[in-house]
Amino acid sequence: MQVNGKHYRTVWLDEGIVKMINQPLIPHTFEIFESAAYEETAWAIKTMVVRGAGAIGAAAGFGVAQAALAAPDGRIAADMREAAEAKAIADEDAAACQAIGQLGAEQIDDGCRILTHCNAGWLAFVDWGTALSPVYAAKRQKKKVFVFVDETRPRCQGARLTAWELCGEGVDHAIIADNAAGFYMRKGDVHMVITGADRIAANGDVANKIGTYEKAVLAKENGIPFYVAAPTSTIDMLCPSGDGIPIEERGEDEVLCMFGLTESSELVKVRLAPQRSKAHNPAFDVTPAQYVTGIITEKGIIKPGNLKSLS
Amino acid sequence: MQVNGKHYRTVWLDEGIVKMINQPLIPHTFEIFESAAYEETAWAIKTMVVRGAGAIGAAAGFGVAQAALAAPDGRIAADMREAAEAKAIADEDAAACQAIGQLGAEQIDDGCRILTHCNAGWLAFVDWGTALSPVYAAKRQKKKVFVFVDETRPRCQGARLTAWELCGEGVDHAIIADNAAGFYMRKGDVHMVITGADRIAANGDVANKIGTYEKAVLAKENGIPFYVAAPTSTIDMLCPSGDGIPIEERGEDEVLCMFGLTESSELVKVRLAPQRSKAHNPAFDVTPAQYVTGIITEKGIIKPGNLKSLS
Repeated sequence: MQVNGKHYRTVWLDEGIVKMINQPLIPHTFEIFESAAYEETAWAIKTMVVRGAGAIGAAAGFGVAQAALAAPDGRIAADMREAAEAKAIADEDAAACQAIGQLGAEQIDDGCRILTHCNAGWLAFVDWGTALSPVYAAKRQKKKVFVFVDETRPRCQGARLTAWELCGEGVDHAIIADNAAGFYMRKGDVHMVITGADRIAANGDVANKIGTYEKAVLAKENGIPFYVAAPTSTIDMLCPSGDGIPIEERGEDEVLCMFGLTESSELVKVRLAPQRSKAHNPAFDVTPAQYVTGIITEKGIIKPGNLKSLS
Repeated sequence: MQVNGKHYRTVWLDEGIVKMINQPLIPHTFEIFESAAYEETAWAIKTMVVRGAGAIGAAAGFGVAQAALAAPDGRIAADMREAAEAKAIADEDAAACQAIGQLGAEQIDDGCRILTHCNAGWLAFVDWGTALSPVYAAKRQKKKVFVFVDETRPRCQGARLTAWELCGEGVDHAIIADNAAGFYMRKGDVHMVITGADRIAANGDVANKIGTYEKAVLAKENGIPFYVAAPTSTIDMLCPSGDGIPIEERGEDEVLCMFGLTESSELVKVRLAPQRSKAHNPAFDVTPAQYVTGIITEKGIIKPGNLKSLS
């Protein structure tokens, strides 16, 4: 996708160096993080220099290739094959996301106003993304589209990452407080919701960023189609329902504090809440299949109750 | 209510000086703003030094009394009466809120877990508040209560003001991202939702802080009682339904930026979003009466479809 007029993937391998867009610095600074060793690549994943299902998968693959290359027994031929396989996995991810874009764009009419939650854009994958890929495809088909960007507290991936991607691709958009999504749905201003997914259970239940469930319930209440865009690799047929998906509880500072840029361009952490207050911070929620209109995969748009048809 | 062990009202008149808790500094600094002239009192209302329906009403009443006292024709007797009337209005506000607390507390069982949105606490009124008044009453009745505090983006009145009040009164609570409210409702962790109201139409539709509608829909979907606590003065029988209530659009910086305290205790504004992104910022939304279980007033708990019984 485009950054300052140049095409970038989110993560790629360049002569043994794993290169990735340093995501915590977005939207304020665009910088490529370079990792020469698998330990450093692992650290980058852990500290969320790279984030998002597809992008993490590709970075991990490249890290394994780096580990193989670093092995002392000189198995160069095998190692080179491992690196080539990691590249193939990354290419497959990008191709699946591009197919999701083409299929999803068929659902987007000219003048469509789409609401999205969190960042399931190209920054979360190797290229194109999932929830945003249909938006980019529709835009390139010269359709007029507008995106309501849920800021997506607590980490604000919407305000930081999705908005930044949309700026790069020249897509008309407005950031809104997550609280305002229902207001615009009820007003008739939202024609469609598209989100990504971290994991989809066999029955079509969808685990995704906290708040996805809220937006899905509101979409149903207001008769608005709610699509989940994800490659078929996200579907876990061994997980019968969303009830079996554990929910990560993250640090409370993500809720009590906020990172941002001061007027003198310094990136600082500020505290919003009283020193004595605690926070709860579930990272994900589960949206039951009944709220999901369809799952946009690289193989077609599938009803959540019909995932078995894929296997 | 209690601040550092001492009782304070939010706003009061002391020998011609209007004194009020300086709310933009909460939760980081507790300071009393003093206004000696009606022009200054008007400025304090405009810049939200004082905020919330009841507190603004009382401040405005005191401001009118200040203006009368400042009149050049020396009508001292009449002026003193005006000041005494403003005090009576403030006392009435506090008494109504206290009655709301007593009535609302009857709905709160021991061990109850309550979710609230925004700040309809004593900082929004002269004393006690509305949505939080039943919580304070239940707490003083020695019931065990826990409050989920929606942080309430964009201005974070939940994280800043409600959490600070609950600290002062010693009420067990956790701040959550607004996105997590639905998660806890679906999990069965929320027994009741109580919010305030800015205006209630004759048909029971409720205008309140942006996001109230979302939480009301989610409460209904999960079979959780959704109460609105407000004095009867909030009910506008001349407004037939919520459709006639205009929604204020506030400045986009409230969404794109955030105020907070740095580690060196400096209060700064930081930007979250890309410089090129815009935001939409509706301040309020309307919750249709169908989602409201009951309206807790000083005269009793009333079904939203039954407001005419009050007149």
